[in-house]
Amino acid sequence: MTAKFITLDGIDGSGKTTQLNVMKQWFEQNNLPVVFTREPGGTAFGEALREIVLKAGNQIDPRAETLLMFAARQQHLVDVILPNLNKGINVVSDRFTDATFAYQGGGKGLPETDIDTLQTWVQGSLRPDLTILLDVSLETAMQRIEGAREKDRFEQEDSAFFTRVRDTYLRRAAAQPEAYTIVDSSRDKDWTKNQIEMALNQLFK
Amino acid sequence: MTAKFITLDGIDGSGKTTQLNVMKQWFEQNNLPVVFTREPGGTAFGEALREIVLKAGNQIDPRAETLLMFAARQQHLVDVILPNLNKGINVVSDRFTDATFAYQGGGKGLPETDIDTLQTWVQGSLRPDLTILLDVSLETAMQRIEGAREKDRFEQEDSAFFTRVRDTYLRRAAAQPEAYTIVDSSRDKDWTKNQIEMALNQLFK
Repeated sequence: MTAKFITLDGIDGSGKTTQLNVMKQWFEQNNLPVVFTREPGGTAFGEALREIVLKAGNQIDPRAETLLMFAARQQHLVDVILPNLNKGINVVSDRFTDATFAYQGGGKGLPETDIDTLQTWVQGSLRPDLTILLDVSLETAMQRIEGAREKDRFEQEDSAFFTRVRDTYLRRAAAQPEAYTIVDSSRDKDWTKNQIEMALNQLFK
Repeated sequence: MTAKFITLDGIDGSGKTTQLNVMKQWFEQNNLPVVFTREPGGTAFGEALREIVLKAGNQIDPRAETLLMFAARQQHLVDVILPNLNKGINVVSDRFTDATFAYQGGGKGLPETDIDTLQTWVQGSLRPDLTILLDVSLETAMQRIEGAREKDRFEQEDSAFFTRVRDTYLRRAAAQPEAYTIVDSSRDKDWTKNQIEMALNQLFK
């Protein structure tokens, strides 16, 4: 069986950490090889870029930020994603290009076609086999963030911004239902766990 | 008169520092407003990116490095180049997109069309009004570098690499003679100074 490339995405506070654990368990139980990674920090290079973005805050031009995200992605593909897929190891990435469409596109207003251009420049025809989109209302997301940890730059943006980000995620998922599974992550743990396991069972059946 | 955007480019050791001083003097003598800047370090953001590239050395994928160069360039355009040009202030940049074509393209083998795509993405139709290309043999360049300062990463590449870089610069200049002035910077100071002053006189006549 060819290795699969799976991404998990959603706004901050959508519960990615919890669902990554669900996914890890599923891979263990099914005895399938997998590497978990994340963007933009999946390489030392990406981590350094992420720190620059966090430090510079809103002084970074959104287009420069977008180029930076794709630079981190390029390195991530070359160092982590492609070598593992080529060895037959499945890859799960916490965030991927959907996040750029959602945050820099929907959130900050970059034209979708401009992001498309960079997507092709970096990825060629590579797209995730499955994207699990965790969806949650802004209110729930904000409560989770406030209760859990320091807000970082992304989390200090206003709610209009997050509404645009969430809408972009949902619009992209709706446009390609065969490549996305939307999971309402405000529902109880057993239900969300079951949704994610069903999506993985379907992908690997 | 519309402000002009001028770039100075050439391989390491081609004598850019000396000729930048010639240009500064010319602008002073002609009493024309000008800002001198440089890539990739013309902004704090660009400087931070430059440090990442130097630190990571050859571990950075050339395509990721190219995206990073254009991220720095985007910020440089937004923060420094465009605001000054819009105010009627001439801008001289120590290196610009030619360096990406020469180093990442010619030197590291990235297809020219891929760099073209990013050039358009970042700059739209903006191109320098004049590029002064300092050309010098590899032997002379190496001697200058060894005598002058620590070699940094770029300067540790082998001579085949620098030959490709130099050839790319020359090929680009030859293809667009109206936009480039090639100055043989191995010749004596008075001669090179005169060449540069003539190019500036011509541009601002």
